[in-house]
Amino acid sequence: MFTLIIGNKNYSSWSLRPWLVLKMLDEPFKEQQIDLFLSDTKARILAANPAGKVPVLVDGKLRVWDSLAICEYLAECFPAARLWPDDAKLRAVARSIVAEIHSGFEALRRSLSMDITLRQIDYESSPAVEADIARVVSLWEEHRASHIADGDFLFGHFTIADAFFAPICTRFQTYNVALPPASQAYVRHILSLPAMQEWYRAAELENNRRA
Amino acid sequence: MFTLIIGNKNYSSWSLRPWLVLKMLDEPFKEQQIDLFLSDTKARILAANPAGKVPVLVDGKLRVWDSLAICEYLAECFPAARLWPDDAKLRAVARSIVAEIHSGFEALRRSLSMDITLRQIDYESSPAVEADIARVVSLWEEHRASHIADGDFLFGHFTIADAFFAPICTRFQTYNVALPPASQAYVRHILSLPAMQEWYRAAELENNRRA
Ligand SMILES: N[C@@H](CCC(=O)N[C@@H](CS)C(=O)NCC(=O)O)C(=O)O
Ligand SMILES: N[C@@H](CCC(=O)N[C@@H](CS)C(=O)NCC(=O)O)C(=O)O
Repeated sequence: MFTLIIGNKNYSSWSLRPWLVLKMLDEPFKEQQIDLFLSDTKARILAANPAGKVPVLVDGKLRVWDSLAICEYLAECFPAARLWPDDAKLRAVARSIVAEIHSGFEALRRSLSMDITLRQIDYESSPAVEADIARVVSLWEEHRASHIADGDFLFGHFTIADAFFAPICTRFQTYNVALPPASQAYVRHILSLPAMQEWYRAAELENNRRA
Repeated sequence: MFTLIIGNKNYSSWSLRPWLVLKMLDEPFKEQQIDLFLSDTKARILAANPAGKVPVLVDGKLRVWDSLAICEYLAECFPAARLWPDDAKLRAVARSIVAEIHSGFEALRRSLSMDITLRQIDYESSPAVEADIARVVSLWEEHRASHIADGDFLFGHFTIADAFFAPICTRFQTYNVALPPASQAYVRHILSLPAMQEWYRAAELENNRRA
């Protein structure tokens, strides 16, 4: 059975991504949690992963680190789940979007950091934050509009691209970000997934909150 | 034919990665260069890629953006080239390494920024920079030692992991970073590839230098 090593559900946006993929696969797995923001956090993470980050997927002797590499590995392990779009060109677009999230959106990440249980009526805006939000919205509008007739996921069925956007959906809820209707509907759809509800409930039960 | 949109060869580390992969594939492609650091640079990049970055691969109507997504697309287009290791577990490790580079090594990137034609006798050190260098070395030593008997690439033959390390090899040369012998040999091997030599010569001929 897989073990997924993750951080706090309230805060660890990178952990949520492969966790959601495993849940959508309906694949049983063990969770091992390392509390972030404690004095021994870094040592515990380094013992699990010399790269010094969570998440890590443990599969027997194999350790796969980094959310994206884990999702790619799961896509290979479970081809029938179609974790990437079937069409090679759409798959390249989905991977472009995922890679863009994986390496970018610094302003959004910094100013609207993931905090599942927090509810704010506003956030500290800046041109860089607004540009990041506008970019997310334009990716959603473009890819849902042009590639799918119907269905609530970005590429018709659930793919890794949706998993990569999931923490961004939670941020838009937490910081009450104004969105056009189609984007609002997408956020609602992602946040209403049973797996996301399960993550939310677990985040609420955590008692370690950042000081 | 593919078109690869890249930045300056002297500076654009992300452009070098898919460029090197295309060269190692021996695949003819067109290059389109956008000079970085000019007043119209951002506008020109945005016209090519709404994500606002180079590189971009153009394949007919398809645009693939981000170095990693481009390399994944090329791996799919040319399966015989084995751009990832054949073994599924080694492939997961290679993808973990590539994803770590794609999203990390900020200190190394900031303090030892790629500058092909520059030669320094030293660099501004810091604990974060030294940790990044040590991490690169430990990845090299571990993966070359444990997985391959012989051969100069990380996973035996050339893979995307080598392409992702190539700009780091140039930085180690530029900033005269002291390395253990096996790592030094790896840097020498990568930098002596005919494709790397070609990139170096083109970088030398560029006349747009950062102010
Ligand atoms: N590129 C990595 C980023 C992982 C990451 O930044 N994880 C954070 C938690 S969300 C972490 O481990 N922070 C602890 C630390 O840096 O000490 C991935 O995609 O998995
Ligand atoms: N995650 C991207 C990063 C690309 C990137 O940062 N490119 C730089 C040049 S090396 C760039 O386009 N800079 C211009 C700008 O940001 O305006 C990738 O892997 O392709």
